[in-house]
Amino acid sequence: MANFDVTRLLAKDSGGKIVLLVLDGLGGLPLEADGPTELESASTPNLDRLAREGSSGLSIPILRGVEPGSGPAHLALFGYDPLQYGMGRGALEAAGIGIEMQPGDVAARGNFATIDGEGLIVDRRAGRISTEKGAEAVADLKKITLPGVTTIVEEVKEHRFVLLLRGEGLDPRIEETDPLVEGAPPLRSRPEETAKEVMAAQHTAELVNQFIDEARELLAPHYPANFINLRGFAGDPNLPKFQDVYKLNAACVAVYPMYKGVSRLVGMTVLETQAEDTPLDEFNYVADRWDDFDFFFVHIKATDSRGEDGMFDAKAEVIENVDAALPALMDLNPDVLIVTGDHSTPAKLRQHTFHPVPTLIWAPVTALRDGVTGFGERQAMHGGLGHFPASDLMMMALGYAQRLSRYGA
Amino acid sequence: MANFDVTRLLAKDSGGKIVLLVLDGLGGLPLEADGPTELESASTPNLDRLAREGSSGLSIPILRGVEPGSGPAHLALFGYDPLQYGMGRGALEAAGIGIEMQPGDVAARGNFATIDGEGLIVDRRAGRISTEKGAEAVADLKKITLPGVTTIVEEVKEHRFVLLLRGEGLDPRIEETDPLVEGAPPLRSRPEETAKEVMAAQHTAELVNQFIDEARELLAPHYPANFINLRGFAGDPNLPKFQDVYKLNAACVAVYPMYKGVSRLVGMTVLETQAEDTPLDEFNYVADRWDDFDFFFVHIKATDSRGEDGMFDAKAEVIENVDAALPALMDLNPDVLIVTGDHSTPAKLRQHTFHPVPTLIWAPVTALRDGVTGFGERQAMHGGLGHFPASDLMMMALGYAQRLSRYGA
Repeated sequence: MANFDVTRLLAKDSGGKIVLLVLDGLGGLPLEADGPTELESASTPNLDRLAREGSSGLSIPILRGVEPGSGPAHLALFGYDPLQYGMGRGALEAAGIGIEMQPGDVAARGNFATIDGEGLIVDRRAGRISTEKGAEAVADLKKITLPGVTTIVEEVKEHRFVLLLRGEGLDPRIEETDPLVEGAPPLRSRPEETAKEVMAAQHTAELVNQFIDEARELLAPHYPANFINLRGFAGDPNLPKFQDVYKLNAACVAVYPMYKGVSRLVGMTVLETQAEDTPLDEFNYVADRWDDFDFFFVHIKATDSRGEDGMFDAKAEVIENVDAALPALMDLNPDVLIVTGDHSTPAKLRQHTFHPVPTLIWAPVTALRDGVTGFGERQAMHGGLGHFPASDLMMMALGYAQRLSRYGA
Repeated sequence: MANFDVTRLLAKDSGGKIVLLVLDGLGGLPLEADGPTELESASTPNLDRLAREGSSGLSIPILRGVEPGSGPAHLALFGYDPLQYGMGRGALEAAGIGIEMQPGDVAARGNFATIDGEGLIVDRRAGRISTEKGAEAVADLKKITLPGVTTIVEEVKEHRFVLLLRGEGLDPRIEETDPLVEGAPPLRSRPEETAKEVMAAQHTAELVNQFIDEARELLAPHYPANFINLRGFAGDPNLPKFQDVYKLNAACVAVYPMYKGVSRLVGMTVLETQAEDTPLDEFNYVADRWDDFDFFFVHIKATDSRGEDGMFDAKAEVIENVDAALPALMDLNPDVLIVTGDHSTPAKLRQHTFHPVPTLIWAPVTALRDGVTGFGERQAMHGGLGHFPASDLMMMALGYAQRLSRYGA
């Protein structure tokens, strides 16, 4: 019996309220071998209290040793085996800005770029134009019509937009057009190797190339945004929904479109946020809608960003800010509060890494205090939750919230 | 390679003797957040010695977060993936009283009930009649004949009996007839939703309804046991047997029919016990038959019962009684002694819970002392066995008993 067969069988639509607080890239490494990690160096009296009163452990995002992308890492946290369930970046980006994909659609991430007179890409981000300028260029892209399909084009942010093709006979298994280096010509799309005999993929690649050709003509007045690259072609991932598999009415509080996207794809209601929201702002959105949902996913992006920038102290400071705001969540008296990350992003390595992620479950009725006295990598290693696959976390959340029936008599 | 492929390949019919001592619902929770669990509060010098001399860990019965039923939890302890192997309560109950099921049989749990003049169930347990009265009513049920099938009816205890149908063209996928509430009319059996087009299920439901109709007429003189409800329809689960998969000649010492049932279904010899047996009585049965078997499963029920009753101190006292009797087992010099539970039943929550179960393996030749100094949840968390699926325990038992050949050259 697969995981969702079990949850569909056992999940109840009653029981405790759950908050899943994800600090993106939470896990870290010391700068000096014997020193503290970012989380260990941060002063976190509230998180330490939760760890002391709850159970801790280490979450393994994908597989031991494997560095996770943000998409699969979040799917895993949401209980979807990331080796079984996938979603293309195009689908994520489309969902992130509220475009509802339908079966048969193909979505892509678009980037405005600068192309020179010789047909070479000289800036893959078109000088990071403003969102306003991007929207003006998108307005021209909306004029493009393709035979037999509807096109939807929407600005995301700065040089980024989404293109969605809707119609019969499309297939997302086509190659990206971004050469990924500057000074090179753009690529023409064509079917992926595995789909090279598939008519629908050939047709879709032709439509994409035609779209790019027309875009080049229309965008001339928008220099430096005078060209586009298309990436991450994806169909509707058609993921099982939280209400179906967990009987949870779930809400997402996230600032970045991608995390809104994956939340929407699993059936969460995405609450409105602002780009400049602080952790406290995000927690206040939870408070505002506390009575409306069973489950809140709250996503903090800045831990990951500071890690990728190599800023150890700044990452620790983000964690301290989250800690300082935590009473706003605690005052809601959640039945289960989980604090974790989707993966590690040690400032020392400036990238996502495979390292398992410190995780705590605080649940006054059901959690067994495990002797852990603070929240951090070294303490979580020896916590009562052990080392577990991230994709087990949702089942644990439901168990601690007493939202599962007994399995078997 | 599936689990049993490995054990079939590697298991030897020589090596050490194994005792698997299961304290039902052993795992617990503190009543006060920083207090001890039932096991931690009990004075257990013998169990502590075993933990100190062996290796400890936490066993995960079904899946993290999932509250186990007794059937699947025991299958897991016996090495059967509980998500793959199942067995209906009817099959368990039949096996528990020594009825050997055959392929094609359908077994059900029967309950005598009281029905009033208007056809409403007014007591689902017929006033918990005595086992003697139950046997008298069963004697009348034995008179019922159904077209084309043989019926076997046997008293279990008080208001409970087993009905088994044997013949061609039967299917256990039919609905229970117990309305589960009093003051309601009994239900008619019919095929389950998944089998509603299946002729054999329709036929079986008709036979069951006919049996109930005839029972009602015959039982009038047995008031308050003047009606029956039938539940847990099940076919022969046809589980692999211990001798086949483990090369173990295994015996069961248990007091409750259900645990005898599951033991019989996996091929154990069920030793005779009495309802009022103490832990020491149960250990003495092991001593009596020590030379006849390679493996003894010993089941203690009262830990779970006291947990479900919410009696923290009484549950701890049961554990102390087991501890006090342990020298009777130790004097047999088993090569491997495992002490565990099938799941947790914290008195605080008065029910089975998902919490992983403290487990110790004592094996003088093969176990590595892991620094654990006593038997309890918090110590087992940090023990040398780690946190492992309960269904791995049998393979561990065989390994510690040196009953497995090398895998590969």
